[in-house]
Amino acid sequence: MTVELYFFQPLGSNSGRVFLTLLEKGVGFIERELIGPDFEHLGPEYLAINPKGQVPTLVHDGEPLTEGTAVCEYIDEAFEGPPLRPANLRARWSMRRWCRYIDNEIGRCVMMIHWNRIVPVFVGARTPAEVEQIIARVPNADRRMAWRNAYLQKTPPQEITESRRRLAVAARRIEAALTGGAWLCGPDFSLADIDLLNFYGFFPSWFPELVNDSAAPNTLAWLNRMEARAAVRDMRARTRRRPEPSR
Amino acid sequence: MTVELYFFQPLGSNSGRVFLTLLEKGVGFIERELIGPDFEHLGPEYLAINPKGQVPTLVHDGEPLTEGTAVCEYIDEAFEGPPLRPANLRARWSMRRWCRYIDNEIGRCVMMIHWNRIVPVFVGARTPAEVEQIIARVPNADRRMAWRNAYLQKTPPQEITESRRRLAVAARRIEAALTGGAWLCGPDFSLADIDLLNFYGFFPSWFPELVNDSAAPNTLAWLNRMEARAAVRDMRARTRRRPEPSR
Repeated sequence: MTVELYFFQPLGSNSGRVFLTLLEKGVGFIERELIGPDFEHLGPEYLAINPKGQVPTLVHDGEPLTEGTAVCEYIDEAFEGPPLRPANLRARWSMRRWCRYIDNEIGRCVMMIHWNRIVPVFVGARTPAEVEQIIARVPNADRRMAWRNAYLQKTPPQEITESRRRLAVAARRIEAALTGGAWLCGPDFSLADIDLLNFYGFFPSWFPELVNDSAAPNTLAWLNRMEARAAVRDMRARTRRRPEPSR
Repeated sequence: MTVELYFFQPLGSNSGRVFLTLLEKGVGFIERELIGPDFEHLGPEYLAINPKGQVPTLVHDGEPLTEGTAVCEYIDEAFEGPPLRPANLRARWSMRRWCRYIDNEIGRCVMMIHWNRIVPVFVGARTPAEVEQIIARVPNADRRMAWRNAYLQKTPPQEITESRRRLAVAARRIEAALTGGAWLCGPDFSLADIDLLNFYGFFPSWFPELVNDSAAPNTLAWLNRMEARAAVRDMRARTRRRPEPSR
């Protein structure tokens, strides 16, 4: 039985949630780090594993599995270890609803804002023509457009404003959900907490106007509980800076 | 133990998939039809059950559950009856991946095109000012904008073109997935088939250029298998025309 995870450093967002799920579950795995600034995820070797060229991919006994939310439930079902889904069925429904919301709403808004900051740095010293050649290799049309807009800094400003507005709504919703309970879906720690940490953990520094002592005390207490977990500490210890492009 | 389902007629899309899941599982339930053209889903009584004013809602022992994909998994876990998720864990991962794709991609594109056809009919003889009053009650900002654009027939034409392009991609992907297997995720019938039928069952008549004998023979064979199922025949027998507005 082999388990391999293809992921990006620094650990967070989509890579982070699958990485952390494996750690929480106690599954040993082979780290297959892809060098983002070298665009290894768009190279023929990785596209043979994941034709969408998206990260992460879990490879279990030679068979690839993609899409974070579905992969994390798979990990919980396929391996021994502490359960990461609540036993109570209503709490489990709540977990799936939160994972969907984190994925579709928080994740998308965060990624839009993040890409706009990071893509111009990511491409290093390449010429515009070289960058366009790389972007043309992105298999998904929407993602290709998002990367191009981010590189050229042409994302419509109203889209960024709208993403920020949605994240403010999400911040209030999260704070309300964490009032009176240790974890997002009640007394049981779950995949929803893992998801949220990886898309939301840097909010106190990125969006201090949303996550601070007065606006979000329960969220900050939850973040402290998360960071104190052995698996999260392990993930932090294995987190590296973004690698430099090799050229 | 009581199970109630709030839904719209005619049965299909979001209402249809939860309705059909209950029938496939053999769960008895109380039908709570909401009259869409009377906007009962935006009235105080329903908003007390589902503050988002979206349909359907399952109420199990007095507690509401929303979001189709999560509700359908809940039904499969909470009630006795034939399993609606594959026993094989990789097929189950595939099921969740398909449900997500049907929800986020096919469902969204279909709804956009559908709303543009239906909202102007839906509002009946109301004046523009009356319609605006109703639309202003839609709790979700995105949905409010989509309804307003559909009513005023102001949806940007390129958005409709883009939705049609995406549905053409989806049609090819579905045809490929159904090649050589009876059901969407392999040998086991699953929630992915239920989802797909409800968002896709009318494609042969709506989009004959995508789903026809030469382009999609496997899809049509699958549709025939679906329509032959006892639960689907039962759903069809319980399907009513869209009610007329009461004023």
